[in-house]
Amino acid sequence: MTERNEHHYTENVQDHLQQVLHLLEKHALVETVTHRQELPRDERHELLDKMLHKRHLAELREKLEELHPADIAFILEALPIDQRLMVWDQVKADRDGDILIEVSDAVRESLIATMSREELREATEKLDTDEIADLAPDLPQNVMRDVFKSLSIDEREQLRAAMSYSKDSVGALMDFNMVHVREDVTLEVVSRYLRRFEELPDHTDQVFVVDRDDRFKGVLPINLIVVNEPETVVGKLMLTDTIRLNPDEKAVQAAQSFERYDLVSAPVVDEEGKLVGRVTVNVVLDFIRAESETDLLNQAGLREEEDIFASVWKSAQNRWTWLALNLCTAFFASRVIGSFENTIEKFVALATLMPIVAGIAGNSANQTTTIIIRSIALGQVSQANARRLMIKELAISGLNGLVWGGIAGLFAYFLYHNVALGLVMTSAMLLNLTLGALVGIGIPMIMQKLGRDPAIGSSVLLTAITDSGGFFIFLGLATIFLIR
Amino acid sequence: MTERNEHHYTENVQDHLQQVLHLLEKHALVETVTHRQELPRDERHELLDKMLHKRHLAELREKLEELHPADIAFILEALPIDQRLMVWDQVKADRDGDILIEVSDAVRESLIATMSREELREATEKLDTDEIADLAPDLPQNVMRDVFKSLSIDEREQLRAAMSYSKDSVGALMDFNMVHVREDVTLEVVSRYLRRFEELPDHTDQVFVVDRDDRFKGVLPINLIVVNEPETVVGKLMLTDTIRLNPDEKAVQAAQSFERYDLVSAPVVDEEGKLVGRVTVNVVLDFIRAESETDLLNQAGLREEEDIFASVWKSAQNRWTWLALNLCTAFFASRVIGSFENTIEKFVALATLMPIVAGIAGNSANQTTTIIIRSIALGQVSQANARRLMIKELAISGLNGLVWGGIAGLFAYFLYHNVALGLVMTSAMLLNLTLGALVGIGIPMIMQKLGRDPAIGSSVLLTAITDSGGFFIFLGLATIFLIR
Repeated sequence: MTERNEHHYTENVQDHLQQVLHLLEKHALVETVTHRQELPRDERHELLDKMLHKRHLAELREKLEELHPADIAFILEALPIDQRLMVWDQVKADRDGDILIEVSDAVRESLIATMSREELREATEKLDTDEIADLAPDLPQNVMRDVFKSLSIDEREQLRAAMSYSKDSVGALMDFNMVHVREDVTLEVVSRYLRRFEELPDHTDQVFVVDRDDRFKGVLPINLIVVNEPETVVGKLMLTDTIRLNPDEKAVQAAQSFERYDLVSAPVVDEEGKLVGRVTVNVVLDFIRAESETDLLNQAGLREEEDIFASVWKSAQNRWTWLALNLCTAFFASRVIGSFENTIEKFVALATLMPIVAGIAGNSANQTTTIIIRSIALGQVSQANARRLMIKELAISGLNGLVWGGIAGLFAYFLYHNVALGLVMTSAMLLNLTLGALVGIGIPMIMQKLGRDPAIGSSVLLTAITDSGGFFIFLGLATIFLIR
Repeated sequence: MTERNEHHYTENVQDHLQQVLHLLEKHALVETVTHRQELPRDERHELLDKMLHKRHLAELREKLEELHPADIAFILEALPIDQRLMVWDQVKADRDGDILIEVSDAVRESLIATMSREELREATEKLDTDEIADLAPDLPQNVMRDVFKSLSIDEREQLRAAMSYSKDSVGALMDFNMVHVREDVTLEVVSRYLRRFEELPDHTDQVFVVDRDDRFKGVLPINLIVVNEPETVVGKLMLTDTIRLNPDEKAVQAAQSFERYDLVSAPVVDEEGKLVGRVTVNVVLDFIRAESETDLLNQAGLREEEDIFASVWKSAQNRWTWLALNLCTAFFASRVIGSFENTIEKFVALATLMPIVAGIAGNSANQTTTIIIRSIALGQVSQANARRLMIKELAISGLNGLVWGGIAGLFAYFLYHNVALGLVMTSAMLLNLTLGALVGIGIPMIMQKLGRDPAIGSSVLLTAITDSGGFFIFLGLATIFLIR
């Protein structure tokens, strides 16, 4: 969807949000006034209210019309449900589709819920097939059936293809807006062909060269068309040693190729060598952003992105799995302490010191895991260097154990004037930090071996082990050396 | 630096890493054999060793030559120091600069440390001025002086400009490889002008239209040059309502513009309306990736990206500030418990249950903060909706307090058959979760008001409060209601 000329670009979308909020407030003010005066009023008054009402909505509509779909999406996301739907009502129907593509999943759901089957069908039909595929999971089945019927045979094929790839594959990032030419024509011919387009598809930095059977031969950068003489033949200029993505390949890998080679677009070629689509850098950018957000959310145990104005009930559910898991591990740790109740009864100081041992090891293990998960994601961890990394992390935890364990030992000694307690404290810290390093490396590496994403769930497991382990080591050592 | 034709693109850089490792191993094997036979050997043997030795290095050199600089950078990052330097030695000198630009800061340091002043000067001189500015902080002063002398007056001006912008501003992302034309010429003239370039600068999706004083007038997408008739005048086609970045603007904002508007390049225009440079999507991609990595590292309290093969000492230092801070807050929490020693002595069960109260509230507060920090970053939090968000998070924590606090209370009751203990447990959970929600929202919002990055340091402060607060609330309630 190219809309270069139609809408204003803006450096600061915040300003527009403020203006929209201002319009909504004026509107709300009229509403409040209208509702408050419940006593019978003369007709003139009522009419005035209605006019004001309409004027504000018209202003809002005008404002929205000049905004880029991405900016409207931003504004919708930043508004509470009631105001969001009021703004959504004022958006021109023919832009609904573009905006639905841009908003976050959670907000999209709230918008789709208010639209009729007819509205949804109209909005969806205006989109490219790859975009329809993105919306499909959120649309009611009957709408999708209608949309499918309205497509041409080629488009149906594309839609079916786009929907058949898994969410994390190159196929899911792919679009079908590629321009292709044959290798035996001249640049002159290519230029004439291109001039038949009113506008080239977005991100057309290169056209793809294919043979009669749509088999991919190479790419011809637009820049080369521009800087070379018109009589040059495509075959002589085209680049053949270029990246080819496979539709089943992991999207993460494609993203890495875009980053490494500074690509703007890349051809997607299937097993038989046929050109099936292309991936463009803007989609990759969105993908990378979404990935990094998922990482941050998962680290805090949030299952998915939250609409900040979702209901309390919905938000709470998003957070529950994690809290439930943590509660279980906390119960377990609590029972570990429970089995040392006799020891604690005899020496209460232990109860004050034990959280230190558990906490610091948890922090340190978390650092180790972050480094390892990142190295695994970058592909820097191999069997060849795994042992080396393990030894290094153990050495760091040993060093940390001596330094911070030593300080904690002194802290314990000065508080309770008991040398043995200080020594138990230091050794427990040293041991638990070492345990933390072992699991901090071990968990993500095992997860990777099992083919699971090491970024998900590693930290609950980690904290469970450093907590319970820390309590066990500290109270265990204390039972042996301090209680006779 | 355009190297489209020279080096192989690769979908799986891992394979190349394996091949390089294999070559290095063969090489190392020869070395070991040579070193082991310390008894005198006949000359023929020694010669053979040397030949083998040389052959492997030659193979390695060949292998490296066909790789893209970004892939060599990847391989260097994945190798331990000794092997890394061996590979670095085999890289052709004229590619040093491009590779230094690509590697991570930590690895760059290790490579630069082995290079002579002369080598560094040569490597740097081959780069564009914006790239030299990127390397500058890592280069010795005398090298930078040499490089500066070798530049033209224009380039010196560019370098000075590039280095004058702060690291997180648009100026730091900018390059100077823009093509500009006047608005009163025809596309024909533009095409002829462009044909004088052997190759257009990377990511030239548009040329910039300026007047005689370099004042920015608009942009002319290359695609429009291609699809329009040659006699059309630039002024008629150019787009004027287009994004303009300011060099002092925050880089994050520019990145958001690229994401929202799917840009490939954007002009950078100064206060006086002069075109000073451009930003391209590949730089934005790197910037976004780096930002998201910094976020993940900071969350685990890692000050900076670590070279995974850095020395134990260096890695430990990267992690110390955070651990030291956490140790301090743990000491404080420990003293909070310490002030209730009498209570614990009378009722040891409290010691087993208190970590549950502290832990779950910490997790829940962390979820709240993650959502708020993200919303702040997206610009969705304003004074208008802050109260609304606060109320929502308090409601969620209340709900969580009743649900999970209730379960924890039952857990306590079934273990110790004490109804009062169960009630104390539930109320403490409820109160501490509420406290967690308050600080989970409050801390990032206050940090933002103070103009600081809310993502840094929020979590230490948060955990400190939910830990100490949890112990205080739970043990305090217990002292009041359980101990007579």
